Amino acid sequence: MARGRQEINVAVAKLSDLLGDRLTTGEAVRRHHGDDLSHHAAHLPDAVAFAASTEEVAQIVRICAEHHTPIVAFGTGTSLECHIAALHGGVCIDVSRMDEIVKVNAEDMDVVVQPGVTRKKLNDYLRDTGLFFPIDPGADASLGGMAATRASGTNAVRYGTMRENVLSLSVVLADGRIIRTASRARKSSAGYDLTRLFVGSEGTLGVITELTLRLYGIPEAISAAVCPFETLEGAVNTVIQTIQLGVPIARIELLDEVMVEAINRYSKLDLPLQPMLFLEFHGSPAGVAEQAQTVAEVADDNGGGAFEWTDNPEERSRLWQARHDAAYASAAMAPPGSKLWATDVCVPISRLADCILETRRDVESYGVFAPIVGHVGDGNFHLTLAYDPAVPGDLERLYGLNEKIVMRALKMGGTCTGEHGVGMGKREFLVAEHGVALDVMRQIKTALDPDNIMNPGKIFIE
Amino acid sequence: MARGRQEINVAVAKLSDLLGDRLTTGEAVRRHHGDDLSHHAAHLPDAVAFAASTEEVAQIVRICAEHHTPIVAFGTGTSLECHIAALHGGVCIDVSRMDEIVKVNAEDMDVVVQPGVTRKKLNDYLRDTGLFFPIDPGADASLGGMAATRASGTNAVRYGTMRENVLSLSVVLADGRIIRTASRARKSSAGYDLTRLFVGSEGTLGVITELTLRLYGIPEAISAAVCPFETLEGAVNTVIQTIQLGVPIARIELLDEVMVEAINRYSKLDLPLQPMLFLEFHGSPAGVAEQAQTVAEVADDNGGGAFEWTDNPEERSRLWQARHDAAYASAAMAPPGSKLWATDVCVPISRLADCILETRRDVESYGVFAPIVGHVGDGNFHLTLAYDPAVPGDLERLYGLNEKIVMRALKMGGTCTGEHGVGMGKREFLVAEHGVALDVMRQIKTALDPDNIMNPGKIFIE
Repeated sequence: MARGRQEINVAVAKLSDLLGDRLTTGEAVRRHHGDDLSHHAAHLPDAVAFAASTEEVAQIVRICAEHHTPIVAFGTGTSLECHIAALHGGVCIDVSRMDEIVKVNAEDMDVVVQPGVTRKKLNDYLRDTGLFFPIDPGADASLGGMAATRASGTNAVRYGTMRENVLSLSVVLADGRIIRTASRARKSSAGYDLTRLFVGSEGTLGVITELTLRLYGIPEAISAAVCPFETLEGAVNTVIQTIQLGVPIARIELLDEVMVEAINRYSKLDLPLQPMLFLEFHGSPAGVAEQAQTVAEVADDNGGGAFEWTDNPEERSRLWQARHDAAYASAAMAPPGSKLWATDVCVPISRLADCILETRRDVESYGVFAPIVGHVGDGNFHLTLAYDPAVPGDLERLYGLNEKIVMRALKMGGTCTGEHGVGMGKREFLVAEHGVALDVMRQIKTALDPDNIMNPGKIFIE
Repeated sequence: MARGRQEINVAVAKLSDLLGDRLTTGEAVRRHHGDDLSHHAAHLPDAVAFAASTEEVAQIVRICAEHHTPIVAFGTGTSLECHIAALHGGVCIDVSRMDEIVKVNAEDMDVVVQPGVTRKKLNDYLRDTGLFFPIDPGADASLGGMAATRASGTNAVRYGTMRENVLSLSVVLADGRIIRTASRARKSSAGYDLTRLFVGSEGTLGVITELTLRLYGIPEAISAAVCPFETLEGAVNTVIQTIQLGVPIARIELLDEVMVEAINRYSKLDLPLQPMLFLEFHGSPAGVAEQAQTVAEVADDNGGGAFEWTDNPEERSRLWQARHDAAYASAAMAPPGSKLWATDVCVPISRLADCILETRRDVESYGVFAPIVGHVGDGNFHLTLAYDPAVPGDLERLYGLNEKIVMRALKMGGTCTGEHGVGMGKREFLVAEHGVALDVMRQIKTALDPDNIMNPGKIFIE
């Protein structure tokens, strides 16, 4: 990759001819596209191209490829490890206008969407069909971005992550070729699993321009509850035992008492200031009642209080919106002037209690505001670390804490990121996590993008 | 790849020094390792190496790589598309003696196994733990082979396929490097999904030497039933509606009346000679009863007879063993002297009734004995086509029928193989199914195995 200024300028000029006013070089738009929700510094692209179709993305990519110009795909900009930063400049391809729901195949329980459709838009659209799409990261992210980062969320313990719920993708490769990774069949043994290769590849192998996603029937009965615990350990052990009993729980989310206080304030709830589980059960009315009873007994054995039920849909939505707003709630409660660094790790569930408790001790020893919240049914939890950007070194002093948390998770047989992805933030940990396998990832990257124009500097340290 | 006779001989001599009597060149052993359960001709390797460990597989591979010698991995030899044929000679690495169950992590509901462990051996071993591994192709295949072909079986509608149930693999690459594809964490966004890349790669990218697999709790209640139908269409529509209602059915298998007759004879059952569903429900006692009632109502609406229940474990095992023995039952009922060609396709479930009915008409027009059986909850079904190897052209005349079946499935948005894999038999259809994406698969193959020594001639036409 030359990344020559002159080459990039030529590419941008050609793109301007192609796209007219859908190619922007204004600083405000570039800034919006070079900065995400993470603690990383912004890196602005030279231009932002608002693409309208798969074929147009391919045209854009071909022009960029000809001129060795880096490409970053952009959906909603809600990534948490700076996936969208244009580290070497180049062109941001914004797919947010590719927001058509192409086809609902209700009988097959799947849907074809363009990548700019957000998860909430999809579910609003589906409401009358009796179907829904379960993957729900905190932000109302685009489905293309969610596939690119292998996102998950609160429902993953029952419904899986983007890994399990993308049936097929259309992708524009680094040389402008357009591929479809698979058919709509529910299973196949017809060659390499390209769908799963592109899910989680963070834009480093191609630009996702269409997705076929699995859908699920809206359950006949849905019941949500909160349950406070005397100790964090009791809450975590309740989760572990629930999973081990095979209860098909839909959501089981942990909040430590700091996070409970934050969402009480932000979302005007009145929860007791104790470690807390948010739970949701899906099924038939009898099935839901049976699941709930089993979990209530497990909770009781682990020092849990009474379940407080939230049965009507509005109250339920309010509860889960509060959970999804955890990051905003943390921000609101953090010391004035703070910014937040959201991070995540994931471990085998047998190590979860130890991992969270040891992490809490680290947090205390650093004296940092860092509420914990987690999709603990999968062994995945988050810290939101507060730092003051006006205080020199205040962010940097947390690097050591982050490294401690990650290295502990790896030592426990886990991963450096359960759902946020690598981006710029977790690159250095991939060597420890993957060893020689990281070289294999690089070989694949080089084979498909030899000029390294696809989101350069992400996943791999250059 | 030179594939020179002399080079191969040197490699075999070196392997003989390394392995002693665990390196065999006797014809009987080579024949056993060059022939599978498929209709394809046998292709014998020059030698068979019985490997004892991951490190030893790596040593074998390094010697073969040095001498441009093809490598075929072998588990139980139960593949159905000639995956194990040594088309260019070379060395067969038999991993069947690597059959240790390394570690059951009961709390995390996973298990680490060597690749030669078979599915039945694993479940026998697990019995006292209350856990089980659900993937069950007809044969008692090795778990390494099942991962390599992305196998599934009767439980996939509820539990997924090998794609969903392999957490991590150890793999020896074409140059002898050993990698681990992932941690034991249930989910991760830490880079490319190498696990899914190797699952289904049919030995063309490396040799699987260890697997970490998901386990499930043995359900509190299990209930199985058979239900006869007036028409094949009624049976298929019952499946479609059951899936669409979101019933978490564990197994829902279709047999046409020819297959019912075959298994009646072979397994000494007394089922009515009608299209038939075999069903199984997993859950709590109340949950199972509720599921069963829902499906019984759906069946009744579609011309189904009464459910005949098979509740005690021995009877249930007998029923499912009969289902797993469908291939043997077909062979026993086929015209004397016949051999069988087992094939499979998979389509979106909305097209399943049309696909099966049109396929039946093709079978009739060819006048061939070809019972139909299928994992229809996933849209996947099988034909076992009988031919007489003593009659010149009798096998070849079925090529056109197979092509019709595959091309119909592709036209309906499906895949040329739901679970058997590509091997030699489906290579030519991958162009129609994948188009440009097949070139991407080839690029990955070339990047990781530039000398094409890993199971050459499989998946890709050379």
